[in-house]
Amino acid sequence: MARPFTLFTGQWADLPLEEVARRAHEWGYDGLELACWGDHFEVDRALHEDGYLAGRHALLEKYELRCWAISNHLVGQAVCDHPIDTRHQAIVPARIWGDGEPKGVRQRAAAEMADTARAAAAFGVQTVVGFTGSSIWHTVAMFPPVPQAMIDEGYDDFASRWSPILDVFDAEGVRFAHEVHPSEIAYDFWTTKRALEAVAHRSAFGLNFDPSHFVWQDLDPIAFLDAYSDRIYHVDCKEARKRLDGRNGRLGSHLAWGDPHRGWDFVSAGRGDIRWEDIFRMLNSIGYDGPISVEWEDAGMDRLEGAAEAVTFLRGFDHTPPQASFDAAFSDSARQK
Amino acid sequence: MARPFTLFTGQWADLPLEEVARRAHEWGYDGLELACWGDHFEVDRALHEDGYLAGRHALLEKYELRCWAISNHLVGQAVCDHPIDTRHQAIVPARIWGDGEPKGVRQRAAAEMADTARAAAAFGVQTVVGFTGSSIWHTVAMFPPVPQAMIDEGYDDFASRWSPILDVFDAEGVRFAHEVHPSEIAYDFWTTKRALEAVAHRSAFGLNFDPSHFVWQDLDPIAFLDAYSDRIYHVDCKEARKRLDGRNGRLGSHLAWGDPHRGWDFVSAGRGDIRWEDIFRMLNSIGYDGPISVEWEDAGMDRLEGAAEAVTFLRGFDHTPPQASFDAAFSDSARQK
Amino acid sequence: MARPFTLFTGQWADLPLEEVARRAHEWGYDGLELACWGDHFEVDRALHEDGYLAGRHALLEKYELRCWAISNHLVGQAVCDHPIDTRHQAIVPARIWGDGEPKGVRQRAAAEMADTARAAAAFGVQTVVGFTGSSIWHTVAMFPPVPQAMIDEGYDDFASRWSPILDVFDAEGVRFAHEVHPSEIAYDFWTTKRALEAVAHRSAFGLNFDPSHFVWQDLDPIAFLDAYSDRIYHVDCKEARKRLDGRNGRLGSHLAWGDPHRGWDFVSAGRGDIRWEDIFRMLNSIGYDGPISVEWEDAGMDRLEGAAEAVTFLRGFDHTPPQASFDAAFSDSARQK
Amino acid sequence: MARPFTLFTGQWADLPLEEVARRAHEWGYDGLELACWGDHFEVDRALHEDGYLAGRHALLEKYELRCWAISNHLVGQAVCDHPIDTRHQAIVPARIWGDGEPKGVRQRAAAEMADTARAAAAFGVQTVVGFTGSSIWHTVAMFPPVPQAMIDEGYDDFASRWSPILDVFDAEGVRFAHEVHPSEIAYDFWTTKRALEAVAHRSAFGLNFDPSHFVWQDLDPIAFLDAYSDRIYHVDCKEARKRLDGRNGRLGSHLAWGDPHRGWDFVSAGRGDIRWEDIFRMLNSIGYDGPISVEWEDAGMDRLEGAAEAVTFLRGFDHTPPQASFDAAFSDSARQK
Amino acid sequence: MARPFTLFTGQWADLPLEEVARRAHEWGYDGLELACWGDHFEVDRALHEDGYLAGRHALLEKYELRCWAISNHLVGQAVCDHPIDTRHQAIVPARIWGDGEPKGVRQRAAAEMADTARAAAAFGVQTVVGFTGSSIWHTVAMFPPVPQAMIDEGYDDFASRWSPILDVFDAEGVRFAHEVHPSEIAYDFWTTKRALEAVAHRSAFGLNFDPSHFVWQDLDPIAFLDAYSDRIYHVDCKEARKRLDGRNGRLGSHLAWGDPHRGWDFVSAGRGDIRWEDIFRMLNSIGYDGPISVEWEDAGMDRLEGAAEAVTFLRGFDHTPPQASFDAAFSDSARQK
Amino acid sequence: MARPFTLFTGQWADLPLEEVARRAHEWGYDGLELACWGDHFEVDRALHEDGYLAGRHALLEKYELRCWAISNHLVGQAVCDHPIDTRHQAIVPARIWGDGEPKGVRQRAAAEMADTARAAAAFGVQTVVGFTGSSIWHTVAMFPPVPQAMIDEGYDDFASRWSPILDVFDAEGVRFAHEVHPSEIAYDFWTTKRALEAVAHRSAFGLNFDPSHFVWQDLDPIAFLDAYSDRIYHVDCKEARKRLDGRNGRLGSHLAWGDPHRGWDFVSAGRGDIRWEDIFRMLNSIGYDGPISVEWEDAGMDRLEGAAEAVTFLRGFDHTPPQASFDAAFSDSARQK
Repeated sequence: MARPFTLFTGQWADLPLEEVARRAHEWGYDGLELACWGDHFEVDRALHEDGYLAGRHALLEKYELRCWAISNHLVGQAVCDHPIDTRHQAIVPARIWGDGEPKGVRQRAAAEMADTARAAAAFGVQTVVGFTGSSIWHTVAMFPPVPQAMIDEGYDDFASRWSPILDVFDAEGVRFAHEVHPSEIAYDFWTTKRALEAVAHRSAFGLNFDPSHFVWQDLDPIAFLDAYSDRIYHVDCKEARKRLDGRNGRLGSHLAWGDPHRGWDFVSAGRGDIRWEDIFRMLNSIGYDGPISVEWEDAGMDRLEGAAEAVTFLRGFDHTPPQASFDAAFSDSARQK
Repeated sequence: MARPFTLFTGQWADLPLEEVARRAHEWGYDGLELACWGDHFEVDRALHEDGYLAGRHALLEKYELRCWAISNHLVGQAVCDHPIDTRHQAIVPARIWGDGEPKGVRQRAAAEMADTARAAAAFGVQTVVGFTGSSIWHTVAMFPPVPQAMIDEGYDDFASRWSPILDVFDAEGVRFAHEVHPSEIAYDFWTTKRALEAVAHRSAFGLNFDPSHFVWQDLDPIAFLDAYSDRIYHVDCKEARKRLDGRNGRLGSHLAWGDPHRGWDFVSAGRGDIRWEDIFRMLNSIGYDGPISVEWEDAGMDRLEGAAEAVTFLRGFDHTPPQASFDAAFSDSARQK
Repeated sequence: MARPFTLFTGQWADLPLEEVARRAHEWGYDGLELACWGDHFEVDRALHEDGYLAGRHALLEKYELRCWAISNHLVGQAVCDHPIDTRHQAIVPARIWGDGEPKGVRQRAAAEMADTARAAAAFGVQTVVGFTGSSIWHTVAMFPPVPQAMIDEGYDDFASRWSPILDVFDAEGVRFAHEVHPSEIAYDFWTTKRALEAVAHRSAFGLNFDPSHFVWQDLDPIAFLDAYSDRIYHVDCKEARKRLDGRNGRLGSHLAWGDPHRGWDFVSAGRGDIRWEDIFRMLNSIGYDGPISVEWEDAGMDRLEGAAEAVTFLRGFDHTPPQASFDAAFSDSARQK
Repeated sequence: MARPFTLFTGQWADLPLEEVARRAHEWGYDGLELACWGDHFEVDRALHEDGYLAGRHALLEKYELRCWAISNHLVGQAVCDHPIDTRHQAIVPARIWGDGEPKGVRQRAAAEMADTARAAAAFGVQTVVGFTGSSIWHTVAMFPPVPQAMIDEGYDDFASRWSPILDVFDAEGVRFAHEVHPSEIAYDFWTTKRALEAVAHRSAFGLNFDPSHFVWQDLDPIAFLDAYSDRIYHVDCKEARKRLDGRNGRLGSHLAWGDPHRGWDFVSAGRGDIRWEDIFRMLNSIGYDGPISVEWEDAGMDRLEGAAEAVTFLRGFDHTPPQASFDAAFSDSARQK
Repeated sequence: MARPFTLFTGQWADLPLEEVARRAHEWGYDGLELACWGDHFEVDRALHEDGYLAGRHALLEKYELRCWAISNHLVGQAVCDHPIDTRHQAIVPARIWGDGEPKGVRQRAAAEMADTARAAAAFGVQTVVGFTGSSIWHTVAMFPPVPQAMIDEGYDDFASRWSPILDVFDAEGVRFAHEVHPSEIAYDFWTTKRALEAVAHRSAFGLNFDPSHFVWQDLDPIAFLDAYSDRIYHVDCKEARKRLDGRNGRLGSHLAWGDPHRGWDFVSAGRGDIRWEDIFRMLNSIGYDGPISVEWEDAGMDRLEGAAEAVTFLRGFDHTPPQASFDAAFSDSARQK
Repeated sequence: MARPFTLFTGQWADLPLEEVARRAHEWGYDGLELACWGDHFEVDRALHEDGYLAGRHALLEKYELRCWAISNHLVGQAVCDHPIDTRHQAIVPARIWGDGEPKGVRQRAAAEMADTARAAAAFGVQTVVGFTGSSIWHTVAMFPPVPQAMIDEGYDDFASRWSPILDVFDAEGVRFAHEVHPSEIAYDFWTTKRALEAVAHRSAFGLNFDPSHFVWQDLDPIAFLDAYSDRIYHVDCKEARKRLDGRNGRLGSHLAWGDPHRGWDFVSAGRGDIRWEDIFRMLNSIGYDGPISVEWEDAGMDRLEGAAEAVTFLRGFDHTPPQASFDAAFSDSARQK
């Protein structure tokens, strides 16, 4: 389909953007999905520093790259999360963390997400990818018993915190693509349904499709694309691999990435359990024509090897659809006679 | 093996103990695993009220029942949990909840667990079943990124809070059987290993084997019994059933028990996915000779029907092991000639 | 749930109804789903013969049976079918077959289905179960190439032939429950969707749920109930068993029922591959409270043994749902203290 | 094994043969399996036009291609089919269709198949690939009930219509390779057995092995090759992919190729579910040394990309068999000492 | 089908036959498959002691039992085995073992098997069940490399040792039913084929079908019955259960029966992995009308419990086949009208 | 990880070593695992012939190859085997076979294995790969019944025969890597455990990991590496492929390699069922940094094609592990701000 292939820069934020751009170009990427952390895409500078955005455009052009989406998972996470703790401190800018008092952290994070919409618009990009956080994720196993009201409040909390942000998205003419992901308000099929309902299916709120977490939840990513076809605003290709042997469990056992006792792990695209052939065919069916972004995470492989391999692997599924049905040749030719 | 079959009374605590006892007797149970909530087994009265324990014994005897274990999951949960919130308020006694300030709640819960050991000893029971809670459960999906130090602190917190409690268990000559369960410090194969290491494999801390949560984590309960054979202090038979169809996920989607869109649910023993034949054969192999307790949970079935059915079903697996090898008959008979 | 269990009499039409009723009563059935062939329920006599319906009611009452649905699969089949051939001659009354000219057969069959609605209403029964036939079933493997227009015409044909019949159903206040089944206009998930659209989702047209043909098509009957929950008008329990070994195929190889080389076959309920536990739980979830009818077909088992066994087996899944959530006992009891 | 790889031209009949030949040569094919429709191989011209066959040979030689088989599926289909309708009109030449009266269509189709044998012989080709049609395919789901006599008549019809054709094959010294395929007299394991019996296993009637339809029938193509090893006259490599998710069924739901709700679809060789490694090893075992022909159908991929990819992919399985057993080295070397 | 159910007495040979007979009668068996070891059926006494056979008949009659087959696995094993060692000494009578020199042991065992045929005939029984032994079993994993000649010699050895024995079977009008079993000349599908060829398919040599060893070899017992339908002379129902978890292997690891680390084990019929429903339906299809014999082995269950349970369980599959096709009712009733 | 890739020369011993070396170099191998048969590495010459070892080193250097291990499976096999027969005669040197009397063969084989340790040390290689043989392999299916004492004697025999050999290994500073393999004392998970215990876990005795035989035993090679991580002394990559279809069994049916009726067979690495991705990741986890040796066996493919393909295929899994965790980029970049 000749869709553009981009590299998500979030896992490369320790490197200067120019280095990432240079390598991405060499590996054959068409663009970058810029992370709003490190020095890749700084929301505050984008809004307040003259020439910042032009400089970003120039840098991309230098390496023949384009940008279709920017991403702000880390700050987005803090908008709804509970509890807020040192994990968040490590990933949000100091100006968002402030004194770390949860209420304030959440409010500053929300303001930053609205600013991210403004920055995207100013940059000429239509899509902001990110996380929402969740005030009820910690209830996941339903013990202690979770009253229905607590769940309902979780979705209300999400709607009330994000609706003002989404208003800014609407005002700016951009849209938010929530990445369906454990730890978030929408992490599977039915929580996505509920989250969409919570914001009344407003068009500013859509989905970033990333099938990696579908693997260990045994969710069918193809059915998901079919069901939410009109909300697929962006696609991130991250891969996962199950290692279930009766001892390694689905929940990761509090073990680090790469530990062989985890029941699943992220791997470079092409080395896991995802049926990419079916995914790309379904993307064709639902008419998705946006970028295919490689989100590269693999605790067992060098990222320089992996990022190059992944884009080559994934392009192999990006078929050109045919002009005519193959069995048309049977009757067309008969008619000629 | 003619092990005793007991009914865990936790899910029946809305009924007076006498009614539960009467029914359990009718259904064919040999005893009760008494819950330390409702009016079934009250720790404070057990320690401070003359005649309370004798009364409990008398009531059991009236219905030809015995007791091999008491259970205090709900208070145990509050010992380590983070966050502490209204879910805990709903399940612990008001005197434990107090003002709800988490630090105090945890301390009072810890004191109550020590008292539970004392009450068990006074009642003549060797095993207390329960939960530990966990300060790190909420990090389960590893996002935001969880530093290794945070995980380590979680196990340290567990060890430091439970070690003084376990000292009381030792002093009283009873033992604690932690139920391996999501939301707890040990919820699968490798977290159990780590939790046992955290308390230096002291004998006061063992396991309550309940295979129901193994189902949705794809853990092998037979391998678990084999690996931790010397720590199986009690067995609870709760059953679960998977309903994975690509849309229903492993994590439950914040949906209520019994909702058909959950990826798994609890069901009455015999109506789910657990291979009881293999479990009972492995219990024979490891020499477990304690009670088999039915923990009955099924959001789709009346409990009066279910509790009767379950004990009958499960007894069918409690084989009498043979006296001699079946192929001994080949050579014994040859030798006679 | 204490739903009534009925026996579908279609496969017993060689026996007088009284004999069937007597046996059904002995086997523990609560009622009959009367077939409109043999002498069980004769549409023409029902409409034109005084006392016929009263006699039918009296006969049922004599054996403490009731009737919630009548069925007319055989005549319904001829409404849309193409080709019409000796297979139809063998199963419809001579007055419907007439000279066997297809056009006339279809018209007379349609008129009889309208009469069946009238007869059901007169008999005090709200549901007519049956087949629709299909003019496009013979295109099933898509070779020779099937133009889209031909498929569209198939559904148009169905709609134009059945709409006048359904008008009579509406007028009489009864409804038609189409059995989703190969050979019919709706035989799987997506053809059911299309058929419902073809008649604009009018309420007179619903579904008879029979999971047996889902087995060999690898369809998920539980997902089907969930998706079409508001159209489940009747439930027939027929069972099937797969025998796929790489040589026996899905399509039956033109082999007779019971031939061991068929890739699947019908078997007595309880002896096949259907997950009844999940089906009954889903029926509870969607609130189906109509009859559970045993449609008994098994080419390898005597029907007298089988029909008795099947009703006993299936009743085991008809749980009484609980009054309260099982974990309510945790907090209820805490609150009492 | 260095078998020749050919491209079946049936799905390319809308293009002039020269264009197909030029591309096939560029993609690395060794030859063409010529379709008897479009302008690729015209039976009437082959028999009656001077120089036609020489011209065909010259064209193939120009592109360094050879021909081992010609194919006439479309006319063959009409020999036995019932019903005959507009689907057939679209695929057979007007001179075969005539007035469309079924009896005449079948007779003219049969005559053309005999002529196809004559044309093959004249062209110097030993194998004609094709379909037989079937008068009983429409009974596939066995409802309305199918009397055994009707099935028997179906095979008799096949034998009586094809025996005279096969007599011409014998006379010409060529053989017919029926493609086992739904819609035909032989579509699976047991119908193939029955069809072979119907023509008394005469050597003129063999099989074209195409595993694509084995996929959705869950047939084992390796076992099939083993069982009918002496009748494998030709091999077509078409690939299929299952998309079964409980909602998409085996029977295709009357949906167009490429529709994501179909339970299976054709895909370019290498992108589906066929175990080619095992197939090629079994072809080696049974000593098949004829051409490997790529029959390319994929509604989701451009055919120019696909046909090139497929031949490269499939050649990877065409091992050279070894000269000696690998463990001979153990003893040979011992003996040297 | 009302086939007789018998108990194989081989694993009960440590008990006097009368005790076995008394219990078998109580458990509901119709007869005994008498083992030729212990005091159950002594070949030498049967041939040489007046009144011995009459006494055996009388004993059976006393408990309303019959005998359709006698079994001599243990002596049969020694006919071809290599190596012969203390394992054989333990299971054959001292008069067969003699000085233990292998050549003599094999010859005496062969003579005893011929005598077993004579004894069976004298007792009025048509079938002798047993083992053949094998001179090539020890080559099973093909290392050290096994020359084809060695395998061929193994089958020749079998044929040359058993042909004279089978001559006696023919002379006596009885037949030998070899139990397909690891350690024997025929232990799976293809070795059975080869063994039958080795004795030129003579009718004296047939099979005792015992599906238990099919379980761990992943053989399909239903396909086996279909393929060798004319050689199924007897049926033994022994059950097995796999416990494969990636650590327990197929080969048993030299571990004792009942050890939980074995990859499979024998279990009481109904507690393992065998699909009895399909087996009994195939037995009906191939017309097997002999006895169904329970061979009971389970190292984890008391045999008194198990033997009673097994016969009840298995009878549940012994359907009465129907008199007519179930869909006959559709057309029969139509014709009546 | 940039581990060296070597070719095991055992299956190439019919070729002069120089030819093997030349080809291996061309195919991209880094070294050879030299077989102690043919003329590749001759133990007697290595110990007694001046310049032999230097010549070997020179030959390797000429082709830029190195050697990390030598292998002596064939002689090792004879150390414990029972029975000893013509299979052994074919694979051991005449000076080991002598008169073929088993006792002497075993003793001479043991002496040669000690010499192999001496030769390895002299050659500067730390690892000798090989087999142990087994006196109890022929009891594998446990019939005739195997007394526990016989199994115990088998392990005692192994320990007593190999301990003196291992003493020489210790003295020479080299180690033995036993290849876990059917026919040997350790062939699966639990027999490996027992064998290690038999030699008291002395460090001279470790394992050669070859996953090919894990395939048909359904053993998990990843779990095996995890469990015996400190004993993985060498890795051989041989591949296997299952062909189980219900008729082909696990045990090979005494059929030759390459026969399509075998239930499994060896195939060129990359064409079978082994999950190499998981194996290499686990090798990284346990810190194995030795050579990866290709042991090439495939009865269906030319070895010259296969050996080239295999090394390319396997190198694709030999990732460079990353320097830092991928999610470090999230917090590192945040901290910079």
